[in-house]
Amino acid sequence: MKLWLGTGLVAQDDARLSPFDRGFTLGDGLFETLRVREGAVLRLDAHLARLAAGAGVLGLPLPALDLAAALAATAVANDLTEGVLRLTLSRGTGPRGVLPPAEPNLTLVITAAPLPALAPPARLVIVQGTRRNDRSPLAQVKSLNYLDNILARQEAARRGADDGVLLNTREGVAETSIANLFAVIGGDLVTPPLAEGVLPGIMRAAVLTEGAGERPLTVEDLSRAEEIFLTSALGIRSVAALEGREVAGRAIAERLRARIPGA
Amino acid sequence: MKLWLGTGLVAQDDARLSPFDRGFTLGDGLFETLRVREGAVLRLDAHLARLAAGAGVLGLPLPALDLAAALAATAVANDLTEGVLRLTLSRGTGPRGVLPPAEPNLTLVITAAPLPALAPPARLVIVQGTRRNDRSPLAQVKSLNYLDNILARQEAARRGADDGVLLNTREGVAETSIANLFAVIGGDLVTPPLAEGVLPGIMRAAVLTEGAGERPLTVEDLSRAEEIFLTSALGIRSVAALEGREVAGRAIAERLRARIPGA
Repeated sequence: MKLWLGTGLVAQDDARLSPFDRGFTLGDGLFETLRVREGAVLRLDAHLARLAAGAGVLGLPLPALDLAAALAATAVANDLTEGVLRLTLSRGTGPRGVLPPAEPNLTLVITAAPLPALAPPARLVIVQGTRRNDRSPLAQVKSLNYLDNILARQEAARRGADDGVLLNTREGVAETSIANLFAVIGGDLVTPPLAEGVLPGIMRAAVLTEGAGERPLTVEDLSRAEEIFLTSALGIRSVAALEGREVAGRAIAERLRARIPGA
Repeated sequence: MKLWLGTGLVAQDDARLSPFDRGFTLGDGLFETLRVREGAVLRLDAHLARLAAGAGVLGLPLPALDLAAALAATAVANDLTEGVLRLTLSRGTGPRGVLPPAEPNLTLVITAAPLPALAPPARLVIVQGTRRNDRSPLAQVKSLNYLDNILARQEAARRGADDGVLLNTREGVAETSIANLFAVIGGDLVTPPLAEGVLPGIMRAAVLTEGAGERPLTVEDLSRAEEIFLTSALGIRSVAALEGREVAGRAIAERLRARIPGA
């Protein structure tokens, strides 16, 4: 395995970061997870636009190199025709303290991984132990601060579920630990708007262009959904059950999978 | 400079982390900032107890070595009699995905730094751009997820201030980007309770034992405070101004500095 580090490819075992990297010490950075299909990165422009938007929120410059070429080179170096790339961009090393250095010394890492095995429809719980911070601009940024998501995923595992639905601070439905959430309620396909504390998922945007609508959702709304499914860069996953209640619908997710490349 | 990495001391330039460390990829870890005074770590037991509590929230084991001895060895190796140690504990390397591996391969880093220069009384603003998530148990954990604090510190710098007061999701006062906050209001010395989204600061606890009380505070409360000061492991810092209003009081902070070692 090879990975991209800084300005070029290195053998995985030779790739090392400084313990003073602000990505490590403060979670000061961003990432993107990108699907490679038939040797090409799917929806590359949308991923790079989201990365640039997140960098704007963090006041982080983008690296002065062609990110598309670096992603492609990492895929080629790993013979990756079907799989996943992860691009991580941190503010790099800095002196002690929270305030970023005026001239950041960016760290760029791109790693390749095989496509995960196709997962069966997910069993979900509503996360009790934490809430997504819809009052922070970071809710719309794919940042390195993933601990609330980790707590959500751990709680789901403890309760025998595959993933957990994170609520926001006003008890509205936001998303799961790794995916956006769509529901069919009274025949309408809907997902919570970004202001509910929702990451602007690239697959979420693709589903919205297929006619889904945005509206705030409560746990009560989800409890009467005919169908629920999850979206991420890796695809669309149907939901089999929420809090133990079986959810029967699969048709909308199946139709979208047939229409959206890589879904 | 030497730092502690894993099970021993290494030269700083030889210290390298894996780009697959979950501390870097997901902010999956904890840290402590400890004051070294006359060659000894101040309030070591309280710092280790907070680290253990945070590890409990994250479901992270503590390393199987004597952390006190590792801290002391790092101080000695750097001739640090007056200064700062930072202990970082991450869940270490793991496969792709949010769910932690069942058997984590912990990363422990301890770095030494000189004592920062004594700062003059701080000029503060109320942070507009983000809110502290009082609905997450991470508000009470000194975790690697510091981006909201970084945004707060950046906003303060943009607005010509030294630090910013973070409000919680209910508009209550929480803390600043790097310190707990105390105010003298109508003669009473008070600080917001932990449930307001407050990190359980070690110096905060020391000030509470000197007779301070806990109660929720609003921006309006702060706007009529006779004295405001900030506490962190590195000491007590008076506040000169809040949102441009000069705050005259210095007496309580001065009295506490005389009474609390390292304050």
